[in-house]
Amino acid sequence: MARDQYLRAHLMGINTHEEPIVFMRDDCAICRAEGFTANTRLQVRTAGRNLIATLHTVSAEVLPGGVIGFSDGAWEFLGLTPGQEVEVRHAPLVHSLSALRKKIYGNELNATEISGIIRDISNRLYSDIEIAAFLTACATGGVSRRETSALTNAMVRSGNRLQWPEFPRIFDKHCIGGLPGNRTTPIVISIASAAGLVIPKTSSHAITSPAGTADTMAVLTEVDLSLRQLQQVVIDTGACLAAGGRVGLSPTDDILIRIERALNLDSEGQLVASVLSKKVAAGSTHVLIDMPVGPTVKLRDQEQAQRLSLLFSEVAEDLGLHLRCIITDGTQPIGYGIGPVEEARDVLAVLHNRAEAPGDLVDRSVLLASRLLAMATGDDDQGCELRARELLESGRALRQFERICAAQGGMKEFREARHRAPLRAGRSGVLAAMDNRRLAQLAKLAGAPSSPAAGLRLHVKIGEPVTEGQPMATLLADSPGELAYAQEYYRRNHKLFYVAEVAEKGA
Amino acid sequence: MARDQYLRAHLMGINTHEEPIVFMRDDCAICRAEGFTANTRLQVRTAGRNLIATLHTVSAEVLPGGVIGFSDGAWEFLGLTPGQEVEVRHAPLVHSLSALRKKIYGNELNATEISGIIRDISNRLYSDIEIAAFLTACATGGVSRRETSALTNAMVRSGNRLQWPEFPRIFDKHCIGGLPGNRTTPIVISIASAAGLVIPKTSSHAITSPAGTADTMAVLTEVDLSLRQLQQVVIDTGACLAAGGRVGLSPTDDILIRIERALNLDSEGQLVASVLSKKVAAGSTHVLIDMPVGPTVKLRDQEQAQRLSLLFSEVAEDLGLHLRCIITDGTQPIGYGIGPVEEARDVLAVLHNRAEAPGDLVDRSVLLASRLLAMATGDDDQGCELRARELLESGRALRQFERICAAQGGMKEFREARHRAPLRAGRSGVLAAMDNRRLAQLAKLAGAPSSPAAGLRLHVKIGEPVTEGQPMATLLADSPGELAYAQEYYRRNHKLFYVAEVAEKGA
Repeated sequence: MARDQYLRAHLMGINTHEEPIVFMRDDCAICRAEGFTANTRLQVRTAGRNLIATLHTVSAEVLPGGVIGFSDGAWEFLGLTPGQEVEVRHAPLVHSLSALRKKIYGNELNATEISGIIRDISNRLYSDIEIAAFLTACATGGVSRRETSALTNAMVRSGNRLQWPEFPRIFDKHCIGGLPGNRTTPIVISIASAAGLVIPKTSSHAITSPAGTADTMAVLTEVDLSLRQLQQVVIDTGACLAAGGRVGLSPTDDILIRIERALNLDSEGQLVASVLSKKVAAGSTHVLIDMPVGPTVKLRDQEQAQRLSLLFSEVAEDLGLHLRCIITDGTQPIGYGIGPVEEARDVLAVLHNRAEAPGDLVDRSVLLASRLLAMATGDDDQGCELRARELLESGRALRQFERICAAQGGMKEFREARHRAPLRAGRSGVLAAMDNRRLAQLAKLAGAPSSPAAGLRLHVKIGEPVTEGQPMATLLADSPGELAYAQEYYRRNHKLFYVAEVAEKGA
Repeated sequence: MARDQYLRAHLMGINTHEEPIVFMRDDCAICRAEGFTANTRLQVRTAGRNLIATLHTVSAEVLPGGVIGFSDGAWEFLGLTPGQEVEVRHAPLVHSLSALRKKIYGNELNATEISGIIRDISNRLYSDIEIAAFLTACATGGVSRRETSALTNAMVRSGNRLQWPEFPRIFDKHCIGGLPGNRTTPIVISIASAAGLVIPKTSSHAITSPAGTADTMAVLTEVDLSLRQLQQVVIDTGACLAAGGRVGLSPTDDILIRIERALNLDSEGQLVASVLSKKVAAGSTHVLIDMPVGPTVKLRDQEQAQRLSLLFSEVAEDLGLHLRCIITDGTQPIGYGIGPVEEARDVLAVLHNRAEAPGDLVDRSVLLASRLLAMATGDDDQGCELRARELLESGRALRQFERICAAQGGMKEFREARHRAPLRAGRSGVLAAMDNRRLAQLAKLAGAPSSPAAGLRLHVKIGEPVTEGQPMATLLADSPGELAYAQEYYRRNHKLFYVAEVAEKGA
């Protein structure tokens, strides 16, 4: 490669989120010699690392000659210093793209092909639209058991794996989301680890929901642990409640999730691979899956839940995992809060056994914890339920939760949202249904989860009487623009809360 | 909307190709108030127009306060002047995205849903990854006859429609590409219009191939005609050979094609809708479709060609078009040139009846022209073939071609490629097969079609003897980087030309 392939690096001060962008003058010698134009995919190499980026060309006033500009993310990924020499060339041919096309045209892929796709995505060789095409082809064409197992293994190999030589059995739980406020994890992990189960829980941030467990836990304590810190917390307390990000478990999943989030997309095969790859990489041996079913959550009916449950069990078998699925009620939100801070309030109320603690969040948490105890002991479900409830009511779960938070760096204070507005009932009657999907959308429009205090606090549950003009919920936001945007959405979506007329006496 | 939603426009001098990008300071009051972060989708409004763009945030050194930066394309789309006031807000909810998700999950869409998606794409409300998801879902899940007809109609409505009150019947032809060098269109249009058929041909630039008809014709004459110019050329000559771009026929198709090109993707429903929407918008009443079939072109076998032919016929029936499909041999390139300039050479050699004119290009052009004559007259195919050949050999087709080019602005000179290298045979024998796909890839790596002179000139056809070291083709490029890149590809792809050993005498 000729010496004149080298350019000096310059930080543009432009944040393009995750997509790496480089900036070169359209009149530069390298662009002309190599035939680079706007949107060409380039490989940028330094002594230590290399990166595939998309080129945006700039006019002569923007950059001096011999200089290449970098977006913030590309600069950080390469660990550049100002003026450092970098080499640029055409991006190498990405061989797994032929497997991608095979999948797009509806064919089943073998393990080698899937492994190639995941390796190339993980090495940042795919553009965003190529990743979008892969995820869409999987959603539309479906992903077989063999493909899902291969995908899971490939995703595990793309990152770190936790080893737990001290512990023979590692437990974990996961909820197939879509049910706002269903923040059982901190409570379940506290009960299960209070009972002596080893349960190192790493959670992701929200994909398409207004809060993930990592978002809620980040309100309460430090969740951004290194691999070493996380392992120490688990050795000290038998559990952790950390974010998966810095630990590097199945990092390709995070790349996929970014595009899934932008497309508001979840597919069965991707879902199973995403969940189980994190579990295998975390060293889990026993996994409980919570599957809420209802007309406005991810799993619409029993049939869909049974099918997913079967795929989970089959892939778990291929991977040598013990796995149990539990199908739960998903007709309305669990608890009263939606959004990181509001869900954290509900979690603390339950752990403290406060009078205002949402009863449904208590019951759901006890149910899930009991099934973990049953997997661990082989005892019957009913006995385990009594034991789980006793661990919560006695305050042992709370003390265990506080130990975990202390080990992770101490409890945090959280602040109120800056702006709030009541969402009022349009008529009197009985609350007959809520639309989980629209409630989630409303909380996201208000700014959750990126504004942790944003979201909703519900004041009514299904079956309760409602009077016209009564606040059904309080909308919480950190900016007036987001508040107004969410209010406009509420005004245009009357079926968000469905209030049924009460039958007249004697009718 | 408060006055402080306004910002002053600044041209960044950054070319992001088609994707509109705006740049705002991350510390600006509007970003904070509205919750805008990197990759937020924004609506930018001026008095006259509005646009949805993706936000890249910048640091304080990059832009002064109160200013919003625009990529070249976004600036041009809005027709901005420096310092002009623009208004920004969150992008409105894109309602058709729920129909997109329905398609992603494998469901059939109705005409209203498809029309919503096409309208929103045409209004630039979709991001690139959303368009990629739509195209992939169509490729993977398939597109029904009803969906294809709805898609075609929606695409026609998204742009201009040509009216031809002077002519009762308007003819057109189209080739389902994938066969390098198959540049029959300029010849077929010349023969057919010499016979009196009205055939206003608009072509697209290459999608995934090293040259489209528009790329080849751009080498020979002006193709970038306005609607008014194009109509005048047709009134004067009975035909035209123009690029579709400026005419604005089915412009949404061009947006889709940009993403299809990036994904190297073609699906049946999209293909039929793409082709027929251009034809309907161009006012065509009679359409001939050339379908080359071979192991390394788009249509792999007769079965696939028959299926596509059926879909074309069904959708044409729904749209009230007369349509005929003709299945042709696609086992090897037609002519010797691959790439805009090299294909233009072959076209001129055929029209001039030169000795070096490729016989296969002559025969294929005569065949296609004869089928158009048969559609026009109702005469038998054989008689029409004789007539078409006579029109070519007599020089009448050439004179008609020259009239069309003169009407479009005159013939152009074209220049040689700056760099060339022979591609030599690895062993002696007989050329038994060529890989059209890899030949196209090779020509693209050499720079075609964006460098018109780049590409390949073949020296051997299937069935001809080959000696080790003999040049099978000449590689042509305008930059040393592209030449080297294509040469490397040739070295790693020995099966590009398959040379079979010759059986020994008597064996």
